[in-house]
Amino acid sequence: MKLTLNSPLDMHLHLRDGQMLQNIAKYSSSCFAGAIIMPNLISPVTTIKEVEAYKKRILKATGGDEFEPFMTLFFQNSYDYKFLKEAKDHIKAIKLYPSGITTNSQGGVNNFEIDSLKQTLEAMSELELPLLVHGETNGFVLDREREFGSFYEKIAKAFPKLKIVMEHITDKASVKLLEKFDNLYATITLHHLLITLDDVAGGLLKPHLFCKPIAKRYEDKEALLDLALNANPKVMFGSDSAPHPKNKKESCGCAAGVFTAPVALPALCELFEKHHKLENLQKFISSNAREIYKLTPIQKNITLEKKEFSVPQNYGGVVPMFAGEKLSWRYI
Amino acid sequence: MKLTLNSPLDMHLHLRDGQMLQNIAKYSSSCFAGAIIMPNLISPVTTIKEVEAYKKRILKATGGDEFEPFMTLFFQNSYDYKFLKEAKDHIKAIKLYPSGITTNSQGGVNNFEIDSLKQTLEAMSELELPLLVHGETNGFVLDREREFGSFYEKIAKAFPKLKIVMEHITDKASVKLLEKFDNLYATITLHHLLITLDDVAGGLLKPHLFCKPIAKRYEDKEALLDLALNANPKVMFGSDSAPHPKNKKESCGCAAGVFTAPVALPALCELFEKHHKLENLQKFISSNAREIYKLTPIQKNITLEKKEFSVPQNYGGVVPMFAGEKLSWRYI
Repeated sequence: MKLTLNSPLDMHLHLRDGQMLQNIAKYSSSCFAGAIIMPNLISPVTTIKEVEAYKKRILKATGGDEFEPFMTLFFQNSYDYKFLKEAKDHIKAIKLYPSGITTNSQGGVNNFEIDSLKQTLEAMSELELPLLVHGETNGFVLDREREFGSFYEKIAKAFPKLKIVMEHITDKASVKLLEKFDNLYATITLHHLLITLDDVAGGLLKPHLFCKPIAKRYEDKEALLDLALNANPKVMFGSDSAPHPKNKKESCGCAAGVFTAPVALPALCELFEKHHKLENLQKFISSNAREIYKLTPIQKNITLEKKEFSVPQNYGGVVPMFAGEKLSWRYI
Repeated sequence: MKLTLNSPLDMHLHLRDGQMLQNIAKYSSSCFAGAIIMPNLISPVTTIKEVEAYKKRILKATGGDEFEPFMTLFFQNSYDYKFLKEAKDHIKAIKLYPSGITTNSQGGVNNFEIDSLKQTLEAMSELELPLLVHGETNGFVLDREREFGSFYEKIAKAFPKLKIVMEHITDKASVKLLEKFDNLYATITLHHLLITLDDVAGGLLKPHLFCKPIAKRYEDKEALLDLALNANPKVMFGSDSAPHPKNKKESCGCAAGVFTAPVALPALCELFEKHHKLENLQKFISSNAREIYKLTPIQKNITLEKKEFSVPQNYGGVVPMFAGEKLSWRYI
């Protein structure tokens, strides 16, 4: 059995910078037509100049692959209409991080009052620039996404024309929000369709499955699966693939992030096939995103076949999800 | 400020075997007068011969310290009155593990029907041998202890004269059970008085704080603190100190267990002092256990003083809780 995906898109990707970028960029650029690139570098991407310079480094690292990095800015409430109008030619969206909530998010938002965000969000709304949000409070680790719901409600109501993407949702409460507000959308990762907290900490502790937001309960996973497998038009695939060196994951303070870029499409084929929903994968992996972001990706067909794929122990020094395990689909 | 503790007891301790036993036994035997020794060796301790041989190895490893290892057997429903009557001269209690629930528990109990346990539990009841229980189901990792509550209720009712110790409780549901049944008791670890799941997985992932049962919510920790700080007569200190080599903790499949033996008393002094409850520590660390187990420990005074203690990065190749941090109390 074979499946050809037309222009697969990864709507949430960490490519990092420097040597790591060199090591891992090709695992996305070889099998996706484009990806929304997260701006949380050690010095966050906040100017057009930085956007363009980072894009150049990415294109160099992807070595001529047919792949478009969709650039983003790191949200700051100092961005005004004038700046954003110019920025719009260089970026596809703006990513908002609550301060300190995940890797390199120290410069994020502290003040969630509408007044303090109004200038920027109104301009984004007018310019049709989507707002991407890492939606977690600094509460108890399992409650963070649910608690953040009230902020989503507030901005969805206050800026009804603003497209708001709840990134990497993990909680069934977010699924409910998606149904409640027309202008809320979501990305879902591969790993949150497959694992719960039991896989991370129910047996031995698995640092390579540790991510933010942390994987939750079975009923949460089921709610996400229902959206993805049925290709709900408001959801897109976003891997949140986040490489860290092996020694930073297997250490006394393991950084959050699961590296899924090289295994995402084979694993999604396996998952969608298992649930007899392969026919919906094209929408989840590309068509929905084109519609939501109003974009036309590079034309690129990726074909997979149902044959055993032994996942390597590491790619460029990074341990992927399924390292050393077998998947039932592989790239041709 | 100084505090002298009379015959501190650790009512739940893993000393392991072989080289690890050699490396770590002295960190308990130097500062405790006795400890309940867990029987979950790689081949569980199930015969009197094994109990005595293990005790000998422990006494050798503790090198003449004034320290009494209170031995236990690994629960099996084949134990009958005759065997247990003889065993009673060699052990202080019997430990029940649900099968496969934690380190080396593969030979544990699968069948929790009263009928299948009756022979052994009735004999233990008659012989006044306490039953120590690792109370977790194989459900979702955060629900396991709460779900196990129905088993505690069942045996507490069926064997009203049997002393049942809910080991290393972590869930406020267990605190309620303690109030409900006269014959239920509990041990509480140091780490469950100090950490929640946020400390394990709320920021960076901390493998050295990963244990079973996993640390839970703030309200659970508060319920445990209330018991310990007020030296509720039904609770005892049980460190559940569980050494694993550094490379087994900082790996892609980290074993469960926190190594607290060398830091437990200083950290408890700090905690009880902070809450203005130092006067209750003697009960929590020794007197309650003497009463519950009806035992008279070796006379041994351990004095601590309020002076800075820089916790080493490792003890015998094992990373302790608070490695590299400072505590405000130390041994004299």
